Amino acid sequence: MRIRFYNARVLTMEPGREIFLGEVWVVEDRIAFVGTDEEGRQFCEKHPEKILIWDREIDCKKNLLMPGFKNAHTHSAMTLMRSKADDLPLQEWLNEQIFPVEAKLTGEDIYHLSKLAVLEYLTSGITACFEMYLTPFTVADAMADTGMRCVQTSCVNNFSQSVELLEEYYNKINGRDPYNSFILGVHAEYTCSKELLEKCAILTEKYKAPFWAHIQETESETKECLERYGMTPIEFMDSLGLFNYGGGGYHVVWTNEKDREIMKKRGLYVVTNPGSNTKLASGIAPISEYLKAGIPVAIGTDGPASNNCLDMFREMFLVTGLSKLKNMDASSVDAKEVLKMATVNGARAMGLNDCDYLAEGKLADIIMIDLDKPNMQPINNIVKNLVYSGSKSNVLMTMIGGIIRYENGEYNIGVDPHEVYKKVEKIGKRIYG
Amino acid sequence: MRIRFYNARVLTMEPGREIFLGEVWVVEDRIAFVGTDEEGRQFCEKHPEKILIWDREIDCKKNLLMPGFKNAHTHSAMTLMRSKADDLPLQEWLNEQIFPVEAKLTGEDIYHLSKLAVLEYLTSGITACFEMYLTPFTVADAMADTGMRCVQTSCVNNFSQSVELLEEYYNKINGRDPYNSFILGVHAEYTCSKELLEKCAILTEKYKAPFWAHIQETESETKECLERYGMTPIEFMDSLGLFNYGGGGYHVVWTNEKDREIMKKRGLYVVTNPGSNTKLASGIAPISEYLKAGIPVAIGTDGPASNNCLDMFREMFLVTGLSKLKNMDASSVDAKEVLKMATVNGARAMGLNDCDYLAEGKLADIIMIDLDKPNMQPINNIVKNLVYSGSKSNVLMTMIGGIIRYENGEYNIGVDPHEVYKKVEKIGKRIYG
Repeated sequence: MRIRFYNARVLTMEPGREIFLGEVWVVEDRIAFVGTDEEGRQFCEKHPEKILIWDREIDCKKNLLMPGFKNAHTHSAMTLMRSKADDLPLQEWLNEQIFPVEAKLTGEDIYHLSKLAVLEYLTSGITACFEMYLTPFTVADAMADTGMRCVQTSCVNNFSQSVELLEEYYNKINGRDPYNSFILGVHAEYTCSKELLEKCAILTEKYKAPFWAHIQETESETKECLERYGMTPIEFMDSLGLFNYGGGGYHVVWTNEKDREIMKKRGLYVVTNPGSNTKLASGIAPISEYLKAGIPVAIGTDGPASNNCLDMFREMFLVTGLSKLKNMDASSVDAKEVLKMATVNGARAMGLNDCDYLAEGKLADIIMIDLDKPNMQPINNIVKNLVYSGSKSNVLMTMIGGIIRYENGEYNIGVDPHEVYKKVEKIGKRIYG
Repeated sequence: MRIRFYNARVLTMEPGREIFLGEVWVVEDRIAFVGTDEEGRQFCEKHPEKILIWDREIDCKKNLLMPGFKNAHTHSAMTLMRSKADDLPLQEWLNEQIFPVEAKLTGEDIYHLSKLAVLEYLTSGITACFEMYLTPFTVADAMADTGMRCVQTSCVNNFSQSVELLEEYYNKINGRDPYNSFILGVHAEYTCSKELLEKCAILTEKYKAPFWAHIQETESETKECLERYGMTPIEFMDSLGLFNYGGGGYHVVWTNEKDREIMKKRGLYVVTNPGSNTKLASGIAPISEYLKAGIPVAIGTDGPASNNCLDMFREMFLVTGLSKLKNMDASSVDAKEVLKMATVNGARAMGLNDCDYLAEGKLADIIMIDLDKPNMQPINNIVKNLVYSGSKSNVLMTMIGGIIRYENGEYNIGVDPHEVYKKVEKIGKRIYG
C-alpha cells in the first residue's frame, strides 16, 4: 500500500525539529518522505522516479501525525483479571487472585486474552509493546495475527519456564515474522536462584545481548536481596555479568546512588510503570534522579490486573505528576521529556531503532491525534496538550508497519472485537466459574 | 420530551441497589421510572395514566446508565491558559502566567472560555460543575445557554469582587433559570482579610447558608494562617461562625485531627482535586482519614490551567491511587467509595439533592457508558472498570435535565464547537499576542 497523509501537523520527535504543517508518505511498511509541502515539491524534483500513484490519500485536516507510543512493559493476557483483583494488599493480590488464576491458563487462552489487550493498545495509539508472559509462542501468534509490533522477554523463574526455554524463545521468535522479536530476560531476582541467573549470564555472553527483568519494584524486594547477597538486585545481577551488554529493568522504583551509577555505566534503561506502582502502592520512582544521572527512561502500562487500563495518556500524566509530587516541585520532569520517553526512548529500550521517530526509511508506526476535540483546545502547546490533557479519545488512527490497524473507532486486526470479547468471557467462565 | 431508555444495565447509585438490566423513563426534566422490565410492567398496571407515547426510545444495547458525574470544583474559563503555564514552580505559575492573564479577561471572554470547558465536561459525562470565577453573571449565561448545570460560589477576596457583590450574586443567580444556582463563599483565607470574612459570616447567618472556600491546599498556606492567627484556616474560619450552616472546602490537602473534628462537627464536605494537587505539587490529601472520620468527600478537576484536563475518569483513578501511595496500602479507598464521591457526594456537596442518584422524581442528569470498548472488557466488575480502566472515550451520552447534550460525539448546546474554538483562539491572540 502507498498512503499519502497531507494537510497534517507533523511531530517527528527527531531532536531539534519543531512541529510543522506538511506530509508523510508511506510505501509498504516504511516511511518514504516526511516534510513540509515545499520540501515535498523539492523531493519530487530531485527524485522523479519516486513520484507515486497513491492507493490512498488522507486529508489529516491539520490533525497531528506522530510516532506511535511504545508500551515498554506489559503482561497483555492479564486482561482476564481486570477488575477481579483490586483494592487488595499486594500479597493477597498475588497469592489469592493472580497466581491461582495463572495456573489455569492455557497457551490458547493467552492467545485470545492478548488479543483483547491489542484492541486496547490500538485505541491508545500504542504501536508496540514490550511483553512478558507465560507462553511466548502463543503471544507471538496473537501479535502477528493482529499486526501488533511486539518485543518479548521471558518470565523465567524458579517455578516456570527455564533457561533452556529462554534460549529457544530467543532463537525461534527472533526473525519468525515482521512483528515479533525477543530479548533475553527473567521474571525478577527474587523469583530466580543464583544458579539460574548464572546460567542466564552465559547466554548474555554467548549472544552478546542485553538483559531485562522486573527490578526493585518494591522496597521489600530490594531489602530482601540486600539481606540475601549484601547487594541490591541491580548490583547483584550486574556482579553476575548479566548487564555486560546493556538491557534494563521494569519498574525500578527503589534505587540508591550506587544502583544509578551501575545503570549509567552499563547503559541500562528504566521502564517506569507509574499507574501500576500507584495502584499497587509500590512507591514513586525517582524519575528526576534518573534524568539527572543520564539514565534513559521509557514508559509501560504494566498488565491490566495491576493498572488496570492500557493507556499511555494516563501513564504520561502520571510520570510527570508523580515526580512533581515526589519532589514537591511543580517544575519537575517537563512534558517534552515525558513524550520522548513514551516514543523514542521506548523504541530504543525495546531494540526497535527503526521505530523511534518519523523520518525517511523508518518503519511506518504512526498515529494521528485529533486536535479538534475540546480537551486539545486552544492549541497553545501541542506537546503539553498531549501529556497533560490528552486522552485515548484523541486517537484517530493507529498504523503499524504501514498498515492502518485502527481508524475512527474501527479495527482492522483480522477478527471482530466481539469475537475476542466472547472468547475472553468464555475463558473467564471456565476459570472463575 | 419523553425518552425511554431500554435494554440498559442500570447503576442507580441508590444505597444497596446493585446493577440490574432494565429501563429508565424520562419525562421533561425528571426521571419518571427506573427499574427492571418486570417492575416496568407492574408500574404500568398500577399507573395506567402514566403510560406514555414516547418522543424517542433508545436501545442501550446493555450499556450502562448511571447518574452524571459532578465536577465539584473548577474554574471553567481557565481553558485559555491550558498548556500555557505548565512545568513551573507554583509562585511563578500564579504570578507570571495566571494573574496577569486574568487581569485582561472581560466578562464576554469568560462567557466563551466557559463554553469550551462545557464541551469537555460533556465528553467526560459531567452533568454539573461547582464553579468559581471572576464574572459569575456571564458564567451563568454560558451555563444556561449550553444547558450545563452549574452551582457557583464567588472568588471574593481583598483584591476583587466584594461581600456586597457576593450577596448580589446570591440573590440574583439563585432562581434565575433551571441550570444555575449560587452558594456563599470566598476565594481563600490567605487572600481575605479578617474583616472581609467577618462580613461574610453576617451573610451566612442572615441566609442560614453553607460557606465554601479554597482551604488548606498547600502546606505554606496552612502554616502562614497559623502564624497569623494561631489557628489553621479551618479553625479560624469556623471561629468566625462561617461554618455554622455547613459548607466545605476545595482541595483540603493539609489538615490535622482538630481540623477534621471541626469538619465532622459542622458537616463540612471535602472536595478533593487530585489532578491539580499532583500537577502543582501541592501534596496528597488524606482521603482515607476523611473517610475514617466520617467526612464526606466529593471530587473536582480544578481549572484547566492546573490539571489540565477536565476528566472525571482521571480524577477517580487518582483519588484511590494517590491514597494507596500515601498509605502504602493497595487496599486503601475502594473503587465503590470513589464512584460515590464522583456522583452522590458531589451532588450533595453542591446542594443538588435531586441529582444524586437515579430514581423516580429525581432530575434526569444521566450518562450512558459504553461497555463494548476493550478497556471495559471483560465485564468482571463494572464499578471497578469505571474507576480503574474507564475513560472519556466510554461516554456515549450525557443528558442534563432531560435534554441530551452530547451523544456519540455530537453536541447539542446551541452552538457549533468550532465557533467556540474560534472565539477562544481570538481571545488568546488578543491576550497573548
